[in-house]
Amino acid sequence: MKGAVLYGPRDVRFEERSTPKIIEPTDAIVRTSATCVCGSDLWPYRGLNPINGPTPMGHEYCGIVEEVGSAVKRVRPGQFVIGSFFASDNTCPHCQYGYQTSCQHREFITTAQAPLLRVPLADGTLVATPELPSDDMVPSLLAVSDVMGTGWFAAVAANVKPGATVAVVGDGAVGLLGVLSAKQMGAARIIAMSRHAPRQKLAREFGATDIMPERGDEAVVRIKDLTKGIGADSVLECVGTQESMMQAISSARPGGSVGYVGVPHGVELDGAKLFYAHVHLHGGPAPVRRFLPELIDLVWKGKINPGKVFDLTLPLDQVAEGYRAMDERRAIKALLRP
Amino acid sequence: MKGAVLYGPRDVRFEERSTPKIIEPTDAIVRTSATCVCGSDLWPYRGLNPINGPTPMGHEYCGIVEEVGSAVKRVRPGQFVIGSFFASDNTCPHCQYGYQTSCQHREFITTAQAPLLRVPLADGTLVATPELPSDDMVPSLLAVSDVMGTGWFAAVAANVKPGATVAVVGDGAVGLLGVLSAKQMGAARIIAMSRHAPRQKLAREFGATDIMPERGDEAVVRIKDLTKGIGADSVLECVGTQESMMQAISSARPGGSVGYVGVPHGVELDGAKLFYAHVHLHGGPAPVRRFLPELIDLVWKGKINPGKVFDLTLPLDQVAEGYRAMDERRAIKALLRP
Repeated sequence: MKGAVLYGPRDVRFEERSTPKIIEPTDAIVRTSATCVCGSDLWPYRGLNPINGPTPMGHEYCGIVEEVGSAVKRVRPGQFVIGSFFASDNTCPHCQYGYQTSCQHREFITTAQAPLLRVPLADGTLVATPELPSDDMVPSLLAVSDVMGTGWFAAVAANVKPGATVAVVGDGAVGLLGVLSAKQMGAARIIAMSRHAPRQKLAREFGATDIMPERGDEAVVRIKDLTKGIGADSVLECVGTQESMMQAISSARPGGSVGYVGVPHGVELDGAKLFYAHVHLHGGPAPVRRFLPELIDLVWKGKINPGKVFDLTLPLDQVAEGYRAMDERRAIKALLRP
Repeated sequence: MKGAVLYGPRDVRFEERSTPKIIEPTDAIVRTSATCVCGSDLWPYRGLNPINGPTPMGHEYCGIVEEVGSAVKRVRPGQFVIGSFFASDNTCPHCQYGYQTSCQHREFITTAQAPLLRVPLADGTLVATPELPSDDMVPSLLAVSDVMGTGWFAAVAANVKPGATVAVVGDGAVGLLGVLSAKQMGAARIIAMSRHAPRQKLAREFGATDIMPERGDEAVVRIKDLTKGIGADSVLECVGTQESMMQAISSARPGGSVGYVGVPHGVELDGAKLFYAHVHLHGGPAPVRRFLPELIDLVWKGKINPGKVFDLTLPLDQVAEGYRAMDERRAIKALLRP
């Protein structure tokens, strides 16, 4: 079997890897119908997260169950399933509270950019669709695996309520799906921060009412202007830099909420600034598993179409071009077909 | 009129100050029945917050309205009133959302350690008791002005729910009243961090079920031990140092909440640590005004007795001894009687 392996900065290769097998009785093997490149894959791809030698890549997936271990009860071969980037038992206390990405037995999925994938804790991790999906639904179901679930969590963490004024920092796929999530949750006004025409267009399609090209302090001033000096009720932080985080915190009104899902890189929050900002802050690795049943249902019924974020589709063996296109911002998100 | 003035580190004097007068038509003059020294007064007293020349002190107060400005409609002379440390109009958007300490017209009260006090925005700031209170109720009504309201906000911000496991970092008056607040909100288990016998005793009286002398990483390990490895549902941070803040964040379970009210001094939060901790974080200057009606009612009906935190009562002219006793931790909190 061939799959994606990262060798170093901007060096992704499609090469022979060992075919995954059942190791634990709770495992499943999934034949991936589609996989993709994540914004967070770009951190190691750009050399900003160091790697220790050649590293298999990929943590977003959906596909057909090929085989299950002897202890797997809820998932069976032939089902179309979607899982999150963290395998979770879905029974430990943290999972029961809805924080499956902090599962006491969590395992990060790192080999999904391949035709076959071992998923640990299959019963807790995988959710099956009602029946086999049509081919044109696959991109949206794939999106649910991470990027849609993460945008959704950003909106949940930011307490988006019907009628709310929402600002979204970041116009990557997660930010764009944060816009879609806020719309779905009934936000009245959704301000998308973006300076890229194709992303602005998609943001509008997903429900953005205002587009703002400004960044940093300028963006904060504009948001205050747009909200009569009050600030946004909810801000979704979907980048993970110092600037984006401070922009998000400063854009929220006192008592408002910031939901942050961009993996922080070099972020330091000044305690006194945070104190006087008076905001609610919540975030972290999105517990996508919590949202899978609801999001699959919304896709299945055609109520949301998050697969639109994939503006580039490639055969899996061209995975390196997928990384390049996203790194150079030629593509929002690259879908890979084995 | 004589009042308290801070001249420099550990130099508080009781000396002649100008008698307050109505300046704005929205002002009231209050004759203080009682005032007190705040834990936050100790920062400038210890020279850790610089001051610019002699500074009048005090922001906790209750007493009888002496005079009101021409625009004051809801408060009248003769009423017994309590206000918060921030004057607020209680009508601006931030006030309407319940964040009166971020009021668009807020003014910090800084002259309360005196027999007479000017309170700006009197209609928005002051809440009257149903009738004149008995003398023995005054300490509890005074506590509501800041320290009780702040402990209450810590518990609200930490999402304390009936049945919850709560940890309280800090055994100052705010922390102790955080214990009382958590108990009032129905917490099942309340872990108070304290290594001082008189404070431990009061914590138990207020509802603490467990007392922990440990601090920092050791405290985190103990809390995990006490909660089957899960962590606390709610943590109240009532100190404001780097160590106390990190202890609070690390003690909460994923998905749990930290309410922080200790004014941060030199606190820097590592974005990545916060991200993976998966906690809700909320705090800031407590919007005590939001809680005044409810807390006054609880005191009035004898359901809470927060005045117990005052373990030292002095005539106002001995204010310097009040500061000294708190600085040296001989007293939890000093009440001053003009």
